[in-house]
Amino acid sequence: MYDNDSYEELELKSAEQIPQLPPPGKFMWIDIDGNHDAELMEQLGQKFDLHPLLLADAMSSEQRTKLDVMDDALFLVMKMIYSNNDKEEAIIEQVSFYLKKNILLTFQEKEEDVFEPIRNRIRQGKGRVRKSSVDYLFYALIDAIVDNYIVVLELIGEKTEWLEGDLMKNQRIETLESVYDLKRELLFLRKSILPLKEMVVKLQKEETGLISDTTKLYLKDLFDHVVQVSESIETFREMNDGLMDMYMMLSSNAMNQVVKTLTIISTIFIPLTFIVGVYGMNFEFMPELKWKLGYCLVWALMLLLTSGMLYYFKKKKWF
Amino acid sequence: MYDNDSYEELELKSAEQIPQLPPPGKFMWIDIDGNHDAELMEQLGQKFDLHPLLLADAMSSEQRTKLDVMDDALFLVMKMIYSNNDKEEAIIEQVSFYLKKNILLTFQEKEEDVFEPIRNRIRQGKGRVRKSSVDYLFYALIDAIVDNYIVVLELIGEKTEWLEGDLMKNQRIETLESVYDLKRELLFLRKSILPLKEMVVKLQKEETGLISDTTKLYLKDLFDHVVQVSESIETFREMNDGLMDMYMMLSSNAMNQVVKTLTIISTIFIPLTFIVGVYGMNFEFMPELKWKLGYCLVWALMLLLTSGMLYYFKKKKWF
Amino acid sequence: MYDNDSYEELELKSAEQIPQLPPPGKFMWIDIDGNHDAELMEQLGQKFDLHPLLLADAMSSEQRTKLDVMDDALFLVMKMIYSNNDKEEAIIEQVSFYLKKNILLTFQEKEEDVFEPIRNRIRQGKGRVRKSSVDYLFYALIDAIVDNYIVVLELIGEKTEWLEGDLMKNQRIETLESVYDLKRELLFLRKSILPLKEMVVKLQKEETGLISDTTKLYLKDLFDHVVQVSESIETFREMNDGLMDMYMMLSSNAMNQVVKTLTIISTIFIPLTFIVGVYGMNFEFMPELKWKLGYCLVWALMLLLTSGMLYYFKKKKWF
Amino acid sequence: MYDNDSYEELELKSAEQIPQLPPPGKFMWIDIDGNHDAELMEQLGQKFDLHPLLLADAMSSEQRTKLDVMDDALFLVMKMIYSNNDKEEAIIEQVSFYLKKNILLTFQEKEEDVFEPIRNRIRQGKGRVRKSSVDYLFYALIDAIVDNYIVVLELIGEKTEWLEGDLMKNQRIETLESVYDLKRELLFLRKSILPLKEMVVKLQKEETGLISDTTKLYLKDLFDHVVQVSESIETFREMNDGLMDMYMMLSSNAMNQVVKTLTIISTIFIPLTFIVGVYGMNFEFMPELKWKLGYCLVWALMLLLTSGMLYYFKKKKWF
Amino acid sequence: MYDNDSYEELELKSAEQIPQLPPPGKFMWIDIDGNHDAELMEQLGQKFDLHPLLLADAMSSEQRTKLDVMDDALFLVMKMIYSNNDKEEAIIEQVSFYLKKNILLTFQEKEEDVFEPIRNRIRQGKGRVRKSSVDYLFYALIDAIVDNYIVVLELIGEKTEWLEGDLMKNQRIETLESVYDLKRELLFLRKSILPLKEMVVKLQKEETGLISDTTKLYLKDLFDHVVQVSESIETFREMNDGLMDMYMMLSSNAMNQVVKTLTIISTIFIPLTFIVGVYGMNFEFMPELKWKLGYCLVWALMLLLTSGMLYYFKKKKWF
Repeated sequence: MYDNDSYEELELKSAEQIPQLPPPGKFMWIDIDGNHDAELMEQLGQKFDLHPLLLADAMSSEQRTKLDVMDDALFLVMKMIYSNNDKEEAIIEQVSFYLKKNILLTFQEKEEDVFEPIRNRIRQGKGRVRKSSVDYLFYALIDAIVDNYIVVLELIGEKTEWLEGDLMKNQRIETLESVYDLKRELLFLRKSILPLKEMVVKLQKEETGLISDTTKLYLKDLFDHVVQVSESIETFREMNDGLMDMYMMLSSNAMNQVVKTLTIISTIFIPLTFIVGVYGMNFEFMPELKWKLGYCLVWALMLLLTSGMLYYFKKKKWF
Repeated sequence: MYDNDSYEELELKSAEQIPQLPPPGKFMWIDIDGNHDAELMEQLGQKFDLHPLLLADAMSSEQRTKLDVMDDALFLVMKMIYSNNDKEEAIIEQVSFYLKKNILLTFQEKEEDVFEPIRNRIRQGKGRVRKSSVDYLFYALIDAIVDNYIVVLELIGEKTEWLEGDLMKNQRIETLESVYDLKRELLFLRKSILPLKEMVVKLQKEETGLISDTTKLYLKDLFDHVVQVSESIETFREMNDGLMDMYMMLSSNAMNQVVKTLTIISTIFIPLTFIVGVYGMNFEFMPELKWKLGYCLVWALMLLLTSGMLYYFKKKKWF
Repeated sequence: MYDNDSYEELELKSAEQIPQLPPPGKFMWIDIDGNHDAELMEQLGQKFDLHPLLLADAMSSEQRTKLDVMDDALFLVMKMIYSNNDKEEAIIEQVSFYLKKNILLTFQEKEEDVFEPIRNRIRQGKGRVRKSSVDYLFYALIDAIVDNYIVVLELIGEKTEWLEGDLMKNQRIETLESVYDLKRELLFLRKSILPLKEMVVKLQKEETGLISDTTKLYLKDLFDHVVQVSESIETFREMNDGLMDMYMMLSSNAMNQVVKTLTIISTIFIPLTFIVGVYGMNFEFMPELKWKLGYCLVWALMLLLTSGMLYYFKKKKWF
Repeated sequence: MYDNDSYEELELKSAEQIPQLPPPGKFMWIDIDGNHDAELMEQLGQKFDLHPLLLADAMSSEQRTKLDVMDDALFLVMKMIYSNNDKEEAIIEQVSFYLKKNILLTFQEKEEDVFEPIRNRIRQGKGRVRKSSVDYLFYALIDAIVDNYIVVLELIGEKTEWLEGDLMKNQRIETLESVYDLKRELLFLRKSILPLKEMVVKLQKEETGLISDTTKLYLKDLFDHVVQVSESIETFREMNDGLMDMYMMLSSNAMNQVVKTLTIISTIFIPLTFIVGVYGMNFEFMPELKWKLGYCLVWALMLLLTSGMLYYFKKKKWF
Repeated sequence: MYDNDSYEELELKSAEQIPQLPPPGKFMWIDIDGNHDAELMEQLGQKFDLHPLLLADAMSSEQRTKLDVMDDALFLVMKMIYSNNDKEEAIIEQVSFYLKKNILLTFQEKEEDVFEPIRNRIRQGKGRVRKSSVDYLFYALIDAIVDNYIVVLELIGEKTEWLEGDLMKNQRIETLESVYDLKRELLFLRKSILPLKEMVVKLQKEETGLISDTTKLYLKDLFDHVVQVSESIETFREMNDGLMDMYMMLSSNAMNQVVKTLTIISTIFIPLTFIVGVYGMNFEFMPELKWKLGYCLVWALMLLLTSGMLYYFKKKKWF
């Protein structure tokens, strides 16, 4: 609950404590952390007159990104992706926004989120948030989520670059698995983020009066960010495919090297082994064995053969 | 046949027993199990004034998913996919809906279906079905089918994950066949489900008055589900392609390992075998054979050679 | 020439014998078998007032599928594909339709066609053909052609399934050629059939009054068939691509098996051959040769080595 | 310069000799061969009031295919592709058309072109060219160029078929280069021809009055040709991709054959070589060497082993 | 600052020195080199009334290509790509244009740019720049950037051709890396240039009156250039993919050659080595060893075997 001059922050345990309407001239942001708590959701549904289907969407954690425009309210579901400070892995959480006149409800799965900077701006009265209506807050929260997408994509960009370098050096099976995991991650991201583009367009065109023209200017900026994010995803997807092709080519190249080595060694030594085998035979009548220079001649023959082979391989550019 | 207060369930053997119109204020759902019974279909066609082409579609089991909007009726054909409790495999059945004022006809191929929960809700008067008109029942039945699509897709998701794990461990030919079978299954699912998306849009926009505005709100929810289903199919298709690429890469990787082993062993031992072959020759004049240290020197030479080879392989990171 | 009550069938040799207009209340279907006969075409062109460009299209056999809507006539070119009863191969023929008020002209390349069932229906006065105007006949003929597409596609489906099974068993080069031929066949089919979709839509929307509303209902059914055909083609194309990928994977798998066999045998026997080579050397001073147990010790060493190798291969899951 | 009754052909050296307007009732076609002659172009530009940007386009030879519709003129740039009678290779030339009332200017790079048949039709007064206005000439010239595209595509079709046959027989590197060159040629053709489709549509819809309704009928025919050309290009592109896939598959198949041969020979003879090596050892105490049947037993053992191997390979269908 | 008769060029250090409005009848072009200088940007923002979001875009160097149409101004961000005279590599810089009535602001990252020829044209009063309003300058600057895209693409074309030739000669891993780098470069170019197409269309349709109809004619020409650039990018992308396919095919071809060599040598000499091994055995009873012709017969046998092998390989076209 805040207006230009003051703000009030309450941590509430039950839905009954929430006033149905903010005092006039004030705006109310109710941030619900446990969207799986059926009872709490039920109470909120009754208090703020939410349609049962809409409540069900807010309670789910598998709902796809979507925007419902009603007569006097907007309902938006999207994925919040952020990486925990401590741990490496990305956390994916569903966030639902319900925007009514002067009231904004947000439903999250866990207490952790990416809204802390905005909360601080409200607390300290900095930036435009306190000065503006609740629709700007709505924009600011979505923008915070989209900014975190960009952070996640930068991490993917770094990972892609690292994988490229790794691939060039050696073709380990672990690198391969990372490439495949990246592919899956990008597929998931695309699925979550692609619908956002048309949603922001819909938000810009909605005519409920819930979003002021000033905020719509900011939505244009948000749209640019979303387009940038989805273009980056497509680019990373193409680069991921490129990595796969690259792996195949490098792998085929490495194979060629290995097989060439095998062939050179085999092609030189197998005939030589045959020659020495010939003079290892125990026939009683083998004139060469008695020659004085026999042994030297065999060595000469073998040197000649080897030189010939090496010249042939050189000409074929095998090494 | 049901209204808000009462319901009646009859199992009929012949079409003649069916009343042409439900009593006023009541709704009638006629569920025909054997759509291949030509005579029965003929009788129904006459009683409910069905166009011959439409009857032919309902009797077929190869008809593609489609929606016909007529002046006073809606005709919808779709595939019902469900997995039998006992058996593992998915059962595919064609279901046709014919919706007229207060009457809903459904044509199935077999007695088994996914409508049992809805029948129970009618019998027990639970939920919105009994309270609403026959168009809500129409929606509820389609929704039940779409929900079963999601179940089928979850099974495919599990299968994909299992195949991924299996591929990483070994590249068996059976895994390969499963991947290919999955590809075919996804092709079939896409063909059946993709047209549903535009059909639901058409249903939302139809202007026959057969579908009330309240039900249209539910159709919006249904649309979300259908979109989710088709997005999942696309994602699974991409992951299936990814599995194929993965197979090629892992297979090429395994090949590289095998060929490297061959090359290392051959490259080390073939020259050694040549050397021992040399001193196996039976020339009368071979000075080395008479040397006292000859044998030791050969071993020394061979050890030197082997070390050189191993160092070379190490530098090339072959093991 | 036919109406509801009577019909008349004439085999004409020259264009002059054809009346320019059918008797009132009657419809005339003129089926020309030799569209390459320039003189005949010229005469028909003059009699029925055909534009020279249109005549040229009808006489060609390379014209792509297309529909021209004129003020008082419709001109449609399409491919008729059917398999001869005796021979295995599909026959492709160009058919042109020229529909004017009460008159339908069809131009074929050969006498053989897929219209015999419809001719019989006219002769026997069965079905709707005799009862309806010439536009229904126009629809019925196109429908007969499209039905034959479905037959051709079913054959392709069977072929695809057979190729799948064949590929799984062995990767013969003949199978490969069949897969490639199928790809070409599907490319050709798609090129011929794809334009039909928009043509049928155009037919449904045309406003010349040549096609009655009743027939337009049937065109809707025809449209469903055409969509089904083009969807099947796309599915078969994807399955054909899948077969190619499958071939590569199976081929790579088979290669892996072969190379593994080679590697196992080589890796076991090459070192053994080296060892026996060592003791085949003729050095005068080789202490081992004089040991009593020397021979047994060598065998023991070789058995140990072999077991080690086998254990290593087992651990690597090479067999 | 021509009308229905007479025609006049002049070969002019300088732009000044060209009359600014043809005599009333006559049409003028000015065919400029050297579009790189800046001075000449300048003079023509002034005489016929051409916009500088337009003149620059006509003088370039890298301009992409495009159509500019002005108030009283049409400007069209396209590529003319034809194969010289003497030489094998295709010649690509840029042609620009500038159509004003009663005047048609064409700018070519060289004297050679595909317009000779049309010039002859004008000279001899045959066909519709002399009877029609200059817009028909405009159509006829474009049609002549498009007809030459079809000729070029037929050559590509023959080349593709030849490459197919060649690939099936052997996988030479030269075939590979031809496939790649074909790919580049098709890319270039697509780039030149694809924009033509929408250009012809634009020509059909233009409202300057420069193109009569009669000629527009012919443009419809031209459109069919252009669509046919671009469909053929797409088909050839797919077939070219198919050839590449085919090459990989055949190459992998050939490799399999080679490696199988190697494996069979190695797997049979390497163990045999080991066995004979064993009895080549010089140990003093080797009981087998003294056996009378020793030599025969070794042969028996080796035959047994070989039979076993052959049976194994037979079972694995390796030959 | 310039008009038809005079021009004035000033190098300013601080924003305060800039007049807010040019003298009547004059146009002002302010070219800011350091868009990262926050203070300067702030001052300019206040002086020329720039929206904070817009200023942020101009200061960034990661902003995607975009066009904002405001009531009385146009804001365009695009990438300028040019290659330094001295160095080889391409330099990428973000340029933002802010066009108001009679004023054009451009924001660059560095002092270097591609605008020098236009500055010279202003200084010398050549060309249309001085004669036209500031909107023509706006066009001319964008055109200069797009012309540089074409230069960059020509370099890529040369690189592609060089890589083709290089690939045909040998399949080095460095070539592979260049192909992959080219792929990334093309991905980046496409991302930067693709949005330009719709931007120029938007510019042509904008209705602020900032761009005169004369300049719009030039924008049409610019549009042709942009289309040409994006078509070239697509073509290069396809050729790059073709290079990758080519690499795989050539690599597979080279592998086949290597393995064939190995197989021929092994298949000939391994059986021969076995034969000489047989007669190297030390059995006391080996009748052949005592034969006078034994040694010759073995040689004869080996020659026969070798000829047989060579004939077999010849028939299989292995060399």
